[in-house]
Amino acid sequence: MRMGNAHLSVLEKIVGARAMEQGAEERYCHSYDATGRSYLPDVVVFPSTTSQVSRIFKFACEQKISVIPRGNGSGMTGGSLPLEGGIVLSMGRMNAIHDIDEENFTASVEPGVITGDFHRAVEKKGLFYPPDPASSSFCTLGGNIAECAGGPRAVKYGVTRNYVLGLEAVLPTGEIIHTGVQTAKGVAGYDLTRLIVGSEGTLAVVTRMTLRLIPLPEKIETLSACFSDIHQAASTVSAIIRTGIVPRCVEFLDRSSLELVKDSLGASALAPGTCALLILEVDGKKEMVATETRQLKSLCLSMGAIKVTTARNSGEAATIWKARKALSPLLYQLAPHKINEDIVVPISAIPDMVGFIEQLQRQWGLTIVSFGHAGDGNIHCNIMYDKRDEDQCRRAQKAVDALFEHTLKLGGTITGEHGVGITKKKYLTKEIGPVEIGLMRQIKHLFDPHNILNPGKIF
Amino acid sequence: MRMGNAHLSVLEKIVGARAMEQGAEERYCHSYDATGRSYLPDVVVFPSTTSQVSRIFKFACEQKISVIPRGNGSGMTGGSLPLEGGIVLSMGRMNAIHDIDEENFTASVEPGVITGDFHRAVEKKGLFYPPDPASSSFCTLGGNIAECAGGPRAVKYGVTRNYVLGLEAVLPTGEIIHTGVQTAKGVAGYDLTRLIVGSEGTLAVVTRMTLRLIPLPEKIETLSACFSDIHQAASTVSAIIRTGIVPRCVEFLDRSSLELVKDSLGASALAPGTCALLILEVDGKKEMVATETRQLKSLCLSMGAIKVTTARNSGEAATIWKARKALSPLLYQLAPHKINEDIVVPISAIPDMVGFIEQLQRQWGLTIVSFGHAGDGNIHCNIMYDKRDEDQCRRAQKAVDALFEHTLKLGGTITGEHGVGITKKKYLTKEIGPVEIGLMRQIKHLFDPHNILNPGKIF
Repeated sequence: MRMGNAHLSVLEKIVGARAMEQGAEERYCHSYDATGRSYLPDVVVFPSTTSQVSRIFKFACEQKISVIPRGNGSGMTGGSLPLEGGIVLSMGRMNAIHDIDEENFTASVEPGVITGDFHRAVEKKGLFYPPDPASSSFCTLGGNIAECAGGPRAVKYGVTRNYVLGLEAVLPTGEIIHTGVQTAKGVAGYDLTRLIVGSEGTLAVVTRMTLRLIPLPEKIETLSACFSDIHQAASTVSAIIRTGIVPRCVEFLDRSSLELVKDSLGASALAPGTCALLILEVDGKKEMVATETRQLKSLCLSMGAIKVTTARNSGEAATIWKARKALSPLLYQLAPHKINEDIVVPISAIPDMVGFIEQLQRQWGLTIVSFGHAGDGNIHCNIMYDKRDEDQCRRAQKAVDALFEHTLKLGGTITGEHGVGITKKKYLTKEIGPVEIGLMRQIKHLFDPHNILNPGKIF
Repeated sequence: MRMGNAHLSVLEKIVGARAMEQGAEERYCHSYDATGRSYLPDVVVFPSTTSQVSRIFKFACEQKISVIPRGNGSGMTGGSLPLEGGIVLSMGRMNAIHDIDEENFTASVEPGVITGDFHRAVEKKGLFYPPDPASSSFCTLGGNIAECAGGPRAVKYGVTRNYVLGLEAVLPTGEIIHTGVQTAKGVAGYDLTRLIVGSEGTLAVVTRMTLRLIPLPEKIETLSACFSDIHQAASTVSAIIRTGIVPRCVEFLDRSSLELVKDSLGASALAPGTCALLILEVDGKKEMVATETRQLKSLCLSMGAIKVTTARNSGEAATIWKARKALSPLLYQLAPHKINEDIVVPISAIPDMVGFIEQLQRQWGLTIVSFGHAGDGNIHCNIMYDKRDEDQCRRAQKAVDALFEHTLKLGGTITGEHGVGITKKKYLTKEIGPVEIGLMRQIKHLFDPHNILNPGKIF
């Protein structure tokens, strides 16, 4: 249903006039995400307390109005898009870091905290929160929990779900729940915490979270290894994993990715003839890092790298990461539209997948840019095209179909960290069977009987 | 309902006569677990394939007969007890290690594999599966998944849920499902994998699992530190965590525990006047382990340890662990019955909790033995008593009530790794609210509409 003035005045009573926007501009600003798609909400509200969130849901439930939770709209699959209008629940004002507990290695925070701000806050105290999606300078912890965000460091440290101990959340019925624990361990009852993490904002809205922290590594070294042959780079990833060294990052950039970032990497970063780059990072105790850096350098050279550079200081390392993290938005220099798939394959299948993607490019005459978290087999594969060209659309679609088919054939998954949202909905049944999807749908119905929370996502 | 000959003959058709036991002895052998309680099943079946498990459930569902999955009966809270008779589904014959994939750091195994056997199998290939409950020499991986088992190494490496990538499982309706992924990452759909892990065998029966492995640490050092004051030992645990060193084990044994194991530890292990022992273990690269061992040793001494010993070889380390792992069964030397609670408190609250337990002993005149995984705040607190003595029962009950109340007041949980089962059922509502338990009950109903799978557990 569309919202009328009576509805808006109830919302205003809950959050106050200054925490509500109905103007066209503000609604537009909350209409899109990183997919580039846009759906206008009827109204945007900015709650500042859990109680307000609860009252909004009670009202929305009664009136059968959709509520779409939103962090900063950096999602890759449309998870925060208000497909049918309704209320966008913008969580940015619930951005307090309540507590960083240095004795117990935990933090209690609100969902609107920017991930990068949280990194800096805990690192000041000698602590470390590993999950670091490429959008960390603007995405929020709430969004990270919704999508179970990963990032480069997941290869060593795991993803968001490994760092969430407990949640306060509001159910679509308006009830406030507390899940999980505040301690290092806990198994009382079913694991509602991890059911909510990664549910793409469709089961509950997280209003506070207890996160696990670990000690900040003493030392970090960042290496970049240039390869003239993409297959050598891919084989090097498997070879690294086999050594038993666990770098904290093993990132892969193909030739098209390098074209986009070579200027920001700096003139001397890439050797002439570089077709693929690996960014490796090791962390830990100083002596161990020095040893592993030497070992990785010589391994890369023995696998055919034409140049291996170690960042001389944190500034040089930051330059490399800034270039890597800028890749996703830069893709639009190549074509007006992209289909961005974050497939995962077993690490040993990376060389096969890299070859398959090359073949796809030739077969369908499209630029496909591949980069990503090769260390855990998670490749961001971007099929570039122009939506206005029907033939390109058709070919892009064929390429995606083939990409997913091959991914699943190799024992992989269609999404490592971006979620399903709306963009992968139609592919979900290729990976997950009808009984399993049936269970998921029933869980959704159980949490959200009126289907008002973020409807139309995942299935 | 009780089972008749017609029922038994259908089961025989499914699994064969040699995979079914109706004799009193075999039924008795499958009637108890580590709680010491016993409930006779009507029949014990030993399926050897997923398809057999599925057919058993289809039949049980139709006939409304309870099915109780069982590993090796080492559970601490009654999770595998057939409270109302029915079919015990003994998973021990599904014990194949199908694959240990050295390139992708994964293993595909059946639930009946003994955890310790699995440790040895992967370690032979230079790989490592960290979860190691004290019962690892006889418990099964299926049971570990059901309870989300932890163990000493969880302080560094996390618990079972961190090592499960994907599952094949049979629903109580007989349908076979596949959850999760075979890869390092994956977020497609709701996290059914972690919903099943730790659900204490009440949502589905796991028939195959993909587990994550990590590289085997190069070097391990095992230290034991004797303290003449239990409070010094407790404070040392917090002090260790604050240093940023993450030992792979930080175990604590109080004076009563040491009385039980001093002979197996060996004459020279404990300094005269030892009232508490910390067992510390560090692992990783050789040089780092040497440095951290030195640092831990001097930290313990500065905190007041009267003796710190480093195991000279793996044999000496094994002696220490053998003694530690034997503790739980040895408790019955002190009294015929125990109430065993695996509470968890924030690490900084361990000294407070240790003091509180001392006070409880004095107040209720009972021996309370405390030991466990102090590094993550997980203390196994055993209240020893004689069930035949009504007054002791009353006092033991009062002590448990006070223990849980204080645990929750400190921000802790009533169970870190043993689960709720039947022994903690009545305490669950002290920790988890009615809305959350309502959700859990509905999830149970959704998976098991006829309530035939392991009924009467958790809530």
